[in-house]
Amino acid sequence: MLLKDLTWPEVKDLDFDRLIVVFPTGSFEQHGPHLPFTTDTDIVTAVAEGVEHALSDHVLLTPTLWPGLSTHHMHFPGTLDVPQKVYIWLITELGKSLTSMGAKKVFILNGHGGNDTPLRAALRELKSEVPDTQFVFASYWSIAAKTIRDVRESEIGGVGHACEMETSVMLHLHPSRVKVDRAVRDGSKHTDVFRAADMQHARPVYFVQEFYEMSESGVIGYPDLASAEKGKRFLDGIIAEVSAFVKEFLTW
Amino acid sequence: MLLKDLTWPEVKDLDFDRLIVVFPTGSFEQHGPHLPFTTDTDIVTAVAEGVEHALSDHVLLTPTLWPGLSTHHMHFPGTLDVPQKVYIWLITELGKSLTSMGAKKVFILNGHGGNDTPLRAALRELKSEVPDTQFVFASYWSIAAKTIRDVRESEIGGVGHACEMETSVMLHLHPSRVKVDRAVRDGSKHTDVFRAADMQHARPVYFVQEFYEMSESGVIGYPDLASAEKGKRFLDGIIAEVSAFVKEFLTW
Amino acid sequence: MLLKDLTWPEVKDLDFDRLIVVFPTGSFEQHGPHLPFTTDTDIVTAVAEGVEHALSDHVLLTPTLWPGLSTHHMHFPGTLDVPQKVYIWLITELGKSLTSMGAKKVFILNGHGGNDTPLRAALRELKSEVPDTQFVFASYWSIAAKTIRDVRESEIGGVGHACEMETSVMLHLHPSRVKVDRAVRDGSKHTDVFRAADMQHARPVYFVQEFYEMSESGVIGYPDLASAEKGKRFLDGIIAEVSAFVKEFLTW
Amino acid sequence: MLLKDLTWPEVKDLDFDRLIVVFPTGSFEQHGPHLPFTTDTDIVTAVAEGVEHALSDHVLLTPTLWPGLSTHHMHFPGTLDVPQKVYIWLITELGKSLTSMGAKKVFILNGHGGNDTPLRAALRELKSEVPDTQFVFASYWSIAAKTIRDVRESEIGGVGHACEMETSVMLHLHPSRVKVDRAVRDGSKHTDVFRAADMQHARPVYFVQEFYEMSESGVIGYPDLASAEKGKRFLDGIIAEVSAFVKEFLTW
Amino acid sequence: MLLKDLTWPEVKDLDFDRLIVVFPTGSFEQHGPHLPFTTDTDIVTAVAEGVEHALSDHVLLTPTLWPGLSTHHMHFPGTLDVPQKVYIWLITELGKSLTSMGAKKVFILNGHGGNDTPLRAALRELKSEVPDTQFVFASYWSIAAKTIRDVRESEIGGVGHACEMETSVMLHLHPSRVKVDRAVRDGSKHTDVFRAADMQHARPVYFVQEFYEMSESGVIGYPDLASAEKGKRFLDGIIAEVSAFVKEFLTW
Amino acid sequence: MLLKDLTWPEVKDLDFDRLIVVFPTGSFEQHGPHLPFTTDTDIVTAVAEGVEHALSDHVLLTPTLWPGLSTHHMHFPGTLDVPQKVYIWLITELGKSLTSMGAKKVFILNGHGGNDTPLRAALRELKSEVPDTQFVFASYWSIAAKTIRDVRESEIGGVGHACEMETSVMLHLHPSRVKVDRAVRDGSKHTDVFRAADMQHARPVYFVQEFYEMSESGVIGYPDLASAEKGKRFLDGIIAEVSAFVKEFLTW
Repeated sequence: MLLKDLTWPEVKDLDFDRLIVVFPTGSFEQHGPHLPFTTDTDIVTAVAEGVEHALSDHVLLTPTLWPGLSTHHMHFPGTLDVPQKVYIWLITELGKSLTSMGAKKVFILNGHGGNDTPLRAALRELKSEVPDTQFVFASYWSIAAKTIRDVRESEIGGVGHACEMETSVMLHLHPSRVKVDRAVRDGSKHTDVFRAADMQHARPVYFVQEFYEMSESGVIGYPDLASAEKGKRFLDGIIAEVSAFVKEFLTW
Repeated sequence: MLLKDLTWPEVKDLDFDRLIVVFPTGSFEQHGPHLPFTTDTDIVTAVAEGVEHALSDHVLLTPTLWPGLSTHHMHFPGTLDVPQKVYIWLITELGKSLTSMGAKKVFILNGHGGNDTPLRAALRELKSEVPDTQFVFASYWSIAAKTIRDVRESEIGGVGHACEMETSVMLHLHPSRVKVDRAVRDGSKHTDVFRAADMQHARPVYFVQEFYEMSESGVIGYPDLASAEKGKRFLDGIIAEVSAFVKEFLTW
Repeated sequence: MLLKDLTWPEVKDLDFDRLIVVFPTGSFEQHGPHLPFTTDTDIVTAVAEGVEHALSDHVLLTPTLWPGLSTHHMHFPGTLDVPQKVYIWLITELGKSLTSMGAKKVFILNGHGGNDTPLRAALRELKSEVPDTQFVFASYWSIAAKTIRDVRESEIGGVGHACEMETSVMLHLHPSRVKVDRAVRDGSKHTDVFRAADMQHARPVYFVQEFYEMSESGVIGYPDLASAEKGKRFLDGIIAEVSAFVKEFLTW
Repeated sequence: MLLKDLTWPEVKDLDFDRLIVVFPTGSFEQHGPHLPFTTDTDIVTAVAEGVEHALSDHVLLTPTLWPGLSTHHMHFPGTLDVPQKVYIWLITELGKSLTSMGAKKVFILNGHGGNDTPLRAALRELKSEVPDTQFVFASYWSIAAKTIRDVRESEIGGVGHACEMETSVMLHLHPSRVKVDRAVRDGSKHTDVFRAADMQHARPVYFVQEFYEMSESGVIGYPDLASAEKGKRFLDGIIAEVSAFVKEFLTW
Repeated sequence: MLLKDLTWPEVKDLDFDRLIVVFPTGSFEQHGPHLPFTTDTDIVTAVAEGVEHALSDHVLLTPTLWPGLSTHHMHFPGTLDVPQKVYIWLITELGKSLTSMGAKKVFILNGHGGNDTPLRAALRELKSEVPDTQFVFASYWSIAAKTIRDVRESEIGGVGHACEMETSVMLHLHPSRVKVDRAVRDGSKHTDVFRAADMQHARPVYFVQEFYEMSESGVIGYPDLASAEKGKRFLDGIIAEVSAFVKEFLTW
Repeated sequence: MLLKDLTWPEVKDLDFDRLIVVFPTGSFEQHGPHLPFTTDTDIVTAVAEGVEHALSDHVLLTPTLWPGLSTHHMHFPGTLDVPQKVYIWLITELGKSLTSMGAKKVFILNGHGGNDTPLRAALRELKSEVPDTQFVFASYWSIAAKTIRDVRESEIGGVGHACEMETSVMLHLHPSRVKVDRAVRDGSKHTDVFRAADMQHARPVYFVQEFYEMSESGVIGYPDLASAEKGKRFLDGIIAEVSAFVKEFLTW
């Protein structure tokens, strides 16, 4: 179900014991010289809609929160940033509205790496303020790690930002909005940094880098390996894995 | 131009001396038993897109910020609220991102009455923090007062919330999402209150009312007078009047 | 009744069902080369005292909060400013004290345009925090629009700040504190701006201007048209109109 | 000089090298069954005006900030409280306005014990934010300890709140506002507590007591020993001692 | 070098180009019925001192910040908690002091899982406020994953909180403070939860659990497998792996 | 009892009616060219341990909070500062944890002058938030004024910061950490300032001075008069006087 198409009396009649509210979070930030600012938002929305389609009786989907934490991309013009403290507060308040609506289980489906820390922080606040609603957060690439490993052709360093995967999915979803001829491989100035930014690589130490310190073009990864067909395989696999998690969450 | 379809190098090359950034603000709140939660967002987006279409060389349109201040609607489930202090802070930060992008003139085109006070407050913050960018805010119904007076059939009390006008525009834009048979005329319990909520009526005194104190159904106005044809006339007139203002703003 | 002259056991014995607490808000800001910093505070205090005199059994008058939001006047030395966020918080807390005292109806009688937005914001906070007390806010010139129209001689642009009206009322109340020979007509650099600042003119769009951007002298209006006799007529009319509103509020 | 009677061009012409801005801080809180809510404000204003009269060429006096931190008196209706965090912020911002006006030396002359801690805290903020303006704070009874010792007849416990001294000064300043027949001696339930509240007694340990825990009537001290004649002696002595300090401060 | 034993002129003379400031963060929280509240603090301090001993010319060690974010342990009395927002702010300010001292590289060596999110958040703030100092954060168990895998005997679920590892290290460091006979194996109510809390197991989804929801005793893991000898092996291995990282960090 | 050595079940079994929680607060700030950064922390910890030793059945001692408010020492590198607003919030939250543990009486034993104002402020917050726990705060030198007067040899000006007393106590406690040959007498540039900083001298007016405005070396006082033997006498006397107060507090 799409929350946006309901009316309040219909929401009042929902049986929240059998429902998971899915709340997708994206960003509005630079994605290199070839992808649009809404890339994260577009992809996570497509994933969320796929999941809702697969499990429509058990999923209540909200619109995607398109502004995200993009402080590290502010050197690239066009990026719209919600700084950390505001983002934590915003998510906490929207989470409280969901609780107030009756939600018992909320799945924050994230599509942007920069939101990771403030989403964790918001979940701590929500646990204290509205302990009876169960909030779970995951980025789609964490749940769908297997799909990404299976579909990607690049080595470590190829799947980061405006990369093989994101470019592929955008070619599948919005081909006319991809300026594919401008796509460049970038982010490899420094092996460590390069690895740090790959979605499949966790480092044991943490530090904050502004994106321009890692990439001149705004890309980290191998967009040149992208194709629409690969994008469809990424997306289908991600939707399947995320749907499987949502089904599991229903049983918790 | 649509900001969402550009890339950062394209933004870098824009000539902001000849551009107005249009930033629409909506809400996600109950609109009675017959209209969806995104009504304000849908309408203001349609207005903004119409303006962008009319003046595409001079308008840089951002996505609509769909969550708004809806504290007064929280008694009606499904509403998602960004409380006042968070909303002020959120708008201030997004405004600073726009400045950082190079914007010299920003027009916040508002589609939701609840955002009025925090938008004014945010403009005060922005004037102090980024004085060189000119931020102007207006709700579309303030600019398009003449159109609304001309098209509406109802007396005072007919155009408020989920009303003759909003229902008409939604019938024009998204007929399948309007549950027209459930539309009820409401909000008339008390003449003063009734008037207070009409978009064409300004009272000299100000007080805050929760919406349930004014309307049981979540409607204030006469949705029964709505029609798709009237919706088109409302929307066309509003777009024309708002476009005229944007043209004037270019000359300031 | 004047709250300042009571003792706590007397307050404890008040019947708040029959009382409106009147809380006047002023400013301490520049009023051109001819009027003192307390002009707004002096005028709103005189209005409030007149109302209390007229309705002493039903009005409990507090002292006037003399510091106000005057950020836009900070270029003119001598102005004392309470920035927006502090002002919202301050009013919210004082409002909670009034509730704690037993007040059921509170009328915030405002005498300074700069306080408008933060007072609206504070009322939203108070509605959420102490919903059982009814807070109403109005600026005296909104309630007494008819008086002002009737008494003023100037066209649009004459009644703004340190203007025909304020100078007249100060000549009536505190003639020795008005340096009438230094009064200058100002604010007309730009017709739009000029109109924006006239108390009788509402624009459909909103933007923040620092006062020095509108007036070199700190005046907007025609103080040269002022007279003590006219000041008396302004004040008497305002007191009568505000008293009429307070009587109406008693019946709500 | 009284700042309130100046205009901004006159402030601009002041020679702040030879001036101390005196900023008095009071309260609006219960003072037992016999004294009005503005007692602290009335007394500190009289002291400040006396000092200004004595040193008018070197003193620029602002109005008294009548709301103060009175959280500990909130059990007694009629008290208006500015909680600690708001008070710190408010003073810091007003202090910044004074700096912005050109002030080089500011003397915060305090008339209410509850303001002590937040004024110290505000001075720390001001030292960091506007280090070139010298802010000094003192309560009048700290400076005028000798006068108080000399004039009082009571033993330890007699001079606290709505006490021998405050009642005397109010009988001198505003006899018609003192309900002298209702004055009661109170606060002696417990010797330690009693001493803690005497203005002449410093304890080596600090703890917060709500006022109702120390006094049922709202009085701590011996108001029965008060007289108008004694009030004049208190006030004259206090003004002399505070004036002496202001003269010394001019030389720092 | 130990910062605590230096004087300010000695700090002034340090060559920060060749130094890493190591700032250890612990907690004061329940560790089951057999370990003291300072367990995390004691262990991370021992690790930090070991690293300083190994690399004393290149390490400037601060004291361990013993209060940490322990909101999730507040159901167990004795725990002292610094809630998330305060912890973020506290770390940000202490980080700014380190920058002010001259530090160019700071390694926050964490010994408590609850600090993870707010430390990441603080690093984002520090990157914006003091971008020229390089702040890196890691929990010792992330860096020393190999040691832990090598030394532990337990399967997944054995190394969590007050577990095989922590009990072993405390038996090695402070045997008299371990009440070994009260140690219980706990946390296994639910496999998923159990795994979630094991230091060697990362889940793709994130949610907040209060500790009492996972364990009645306050233990998660197998403290019964602990021994002082194993504790020494854990500690030596951890110190070696963390020292290796610090050496690497010197070259960044 | 030392809280750090207990486990949560032992805390649960404590009889808080017969216990005072002693919470020592120190600093990490410059103490001249001869004393280490932890001087305040070391001394207050020694006092607290002495008191715990004397009254172990009735005292539950927490670790010393070593970071304190040292904004005024930030010109001297090595100082770690918790600015005022963070310190107030930190103490308030730790105080709430103590209440949550069951504490009925808490004695904040302070060892650093800079903490004075924010500790008072925190006590006001705690009184409002957790009124049933009694929080008392004192600096050891306020309670032990008699000892200090008896043992010191210096005149006014000798006991301030890194002075006769602090140097003596450190020579007694940690002789190897005192660089006694570098000790200099300082702080006497200006008599008033000099007096202001002496622990035995209260001025009637308050202002904030950065430490470098008072002393070039970071010392105020006569460290040259220090000796280990005198340090023992200071410490023994302080412990005895503070213990006497704790015993008295038990009876409140």
